[in-house]
Amino acid sequence: MRAPDFQPAPYEHDARFVRDTKGGMVWHRVGQRVLFADTDRTGAVYHANYFRFFELGRVTLLRDSGFPLRQVEADGFVYPIFQLGLDYFRPLDYDDPMWIHTRFRELRPVTIDFDYIITHAETGVVLCRGFTRHCATNRKGRPVAVDPVTVGIFNNFPV
Amino acid sequence: MRAPDFQPAPYEHDARFVRDTKGGMVWHRVGQRVLFADTDRTGAVYHANYFRFFELGRVTLLRDSGFPLRQVEADGFVYPIFQLGLDYFRPLDYDDPMWIHTRFRELRPVTIDFDYIITHAETGVVLCRGFTRHCATNRKGRPVAVDPVTVGIFNNFPV
Amino acid sequence: MRAPDFQPAPYEHDARFVRDTKGGMVWHRVGQRVLFADTDRTGAVYHANYFRFFELGRVTLLRDSGFPLRQVEADGFVYPIFQLGLDYFRPLDYDDPMWIHTRFRELRPVTIDFDYIITHAETGVVLCRGFTRHCATNRKGRPVAVDPVTVGIFNNFPV
Amino acid sequence: MRAPDFQPAPYEHDARFVRDTKGGMVWHRVGQRVLFADTDRTGAVYHANYFRFFELGRVTLLRDSGFPLRQVEADGFVYPIFQLGLDYFRPLDYDDPMWIHTRFRELRPVTIDFDYIITHAETGVVLCRGFTRHCATNRKGRPVAVDPVTVGIFNNFPV
Repeated sequence: MRAPDFQPAPYEHDARFVRDTKGGMVWHRVGQRVLFADTDRTGAVYHANYFRFFELGRVTLLRDSGFPLRQVEADGFVYPIFQLGLDYFRPLDYDDPMWIHTRFRELRPVTIDFDYIITHAETGVVLCRGFTRHCATNRKGRPVAVDPVTVGIFNNFPV
Repeated sequence: MRAPDFQPAPYEHDARFVRDTKGGMVWHRVGQRVLFADTDRTGAVYHANYFRFFELGRVTLLRDSGFPLRQVEADGFVYPIFQLGLDYFRPLDYDDPMWIHTRFRELRPVTIDFDYIITHAETGVVLCRGFTRHCATNRKGRPVAVDPVTVGIFNNFPV
Repeated sequence: MRAPDFQPAPYEHDARFVRDTKGGMVWHRVGQRVLFADTDRTGAVYHANYFRFFELGRVTLLRDSGFPLRQVEADGFVYPIFQLGLDYFRPLDYDDPMWIHTRFRELRPVTIDFDYIITHAETGVVLCRGFTRHCATNRKGRPVAVDPVTVGIFNNFPV
Repeated sequence: MRAPDFQPAPYEHDARFVRDTKGGMVWHRVGQRVLFADTDRTGAVYHANYFRFFELGRVTLLRDSGFPLRQVEADGFVYPIFQLGLDYFRPLDYDDPMWIHTRFRELRPVTIDFDYIITHAETGVVLCRGFTRHCATNRKGRPVAVDPVTVGIFNNFPV
C-alpha cells in the first residue's frame, strides 16, 4: 500500500487549517511531539498509540470550531467509536514533531466519520492515515440523530 | 454493522483452542480481565486499548505454538503492523472477563494477517472483531519473506 | 539504593501466597508477562506502566480474598490513590515473566496502604518495590471509614 | 496531606517560566489538556498517567533550555528513572486545562532530581506534586557522571 499524495498548503483564512493541493480538500491540523510514553521497544510509536493522536486531532478540530466536546456531552450526546482503521506507511519515532490532520469525511443520520493523516512536521512525509466512525447516542447508549451543533460544525467546515 | 455469529465449542485435541461451530474454523484463545488502566471515563475500555488485548492474543498463540515471538526476533525477523481495523459491537466494561480469540487469516510472501474476536467470557456475547496485517522485515526494516518457523506455525495451525 | 532481601517460599496453606523467609511476611502473588504495549524505546517497561502491574496485584489479592473490588464499589465505597512511590532496581524487559507480590501494609481509620514487590519469575531477582496509599471515600468523594469487608480482608490476610 | 502553598507569578525574563511567590523558586511550565485517553472509569486521570505529564514537563524544560533530550542521548548519556513519588490532592478531570510546572531539585555526582507541580490552569488549584530521580548512565547502563551539558542547564536554570 502506498501513502496518499498529500501536499498541504496554507489555508488563507485560518492558520489552523491547510488545503491539500493534491486532493483539494481542507484539513484541520494540530502539532504534537512523540514522548517516551508513546513508544515501544522498536523505538517508534506503538501501533495503538496513534489513536491518542487522532483523538487530539478530533477534539482540537471541535474546539477550534467553537464547540468543545465537553459541551456536546453536556447537551446529552455521546459519540462512541464503533469502527476504526489505520494504515501505517513510515514509523513515527521518538521526539519526532508531527502534524495531525483531521477532517470530517461523512455525515449520515446517526453516524459521523473522521479522517486523519499524520505527517512528519519537518519533512512532510506522510506517516499514516486512518479513520474513526462514531455513532450518535444519548446518555443511555441509544442511537439518536447527530446533534444540531455537530451538524452545524460539519456544514461550516472550510471547503 | 452486526456482530458475527460466533459460537465457540471445545476443541477436542487442545484446551487452548476452540472451534467456531458456525464458521467452522479453529481459534486460539486466552482469557483476561479489564483493569481500571484499560478504561476511560465512559466506564468501558478505551477504543485504542483493545489492541493490547489483541497483542496478548497474538503472542500467546505464538507461544502456545511452541515458538515465542522473542525467538522469532532473535532469528532476525520483525513483524511490524502496517494495517489494522476494528469493529466494536458492545462495550467491554471494567472487571469484565473476556476471551480473546486469535487465528491466522492469510499468509502471503511477505505479509501475515491475524484475526481477533473478543467475547464476554460469561455471556458469550461477541464484543468486537478486528485484524492486524504484519509485514516481515529484517532488522533494518527491509521487507523479507516470512520466516520458515512462522510459516510452519501457520501450516500447523489446527483446522 | 539496594533491592530488599526478598526470598519467597511456598506458603503451605494456599498456592496463591508466598512467605518471605527473610522478612517473615506473607505476600499474595500473581504472574504476568511484559507485552510490547508495556515497553518504551529503551526496550524495558516504561516507568509509569509498573502501576498497571501493581493494580493487577491489588485487584487479584482482593478477588482471591473472596471480595472483588467491583463489589466493594457496589456497596458505595471508592478507594482513590492519594500517594504512591516506586523504587526501580533492575529493568523489566520485553517478554520477561514476573511475579507481582502484594500485601496490605497498614490500615488506618480512613486509609489503607498496599506494598508491592516485582521479581523476575525465573531468576527471582527483585526488580522493583512500591506502594500505594488509598483513601476510603463514598461515591461523592467524601472520606469515610474503611468499609467492614475490606477491614475483614485485612484482618484475615495470612500471617 | 495538604497541597503546597504554590502561587506562581510571571517571571519577568521569560514567559516559559514562573516564580512561585510563596516558595521563591522559579519553575518551568508547559500547558496541556486531559484527553479521554488519560482518564479511567472514575472520570479523572488514571493515577499512572500523571507521569506522562511529568515527562512532557521534563523534556520541554530541557528543550526550552536549548538542549533536547535526543541530543543528550546522541552524546551517549541515558537518564533512567530509579525512584519516583507522587501526592494527589485533587482529581484532574477530562478536558481540564493544566499547567505542568517542572524544576531541577538536586544535582549529585551521578543523579539528578526533578520536581513537578500540576495546577488547574483556570483556577490555579494545586492538583498534585511529584518527583523523579534519574541516574546518569552510559549506553551500557553503567552509572557515570552527569554529562556536562545537563550540568550546564542545571547551573543556568533561572533563580
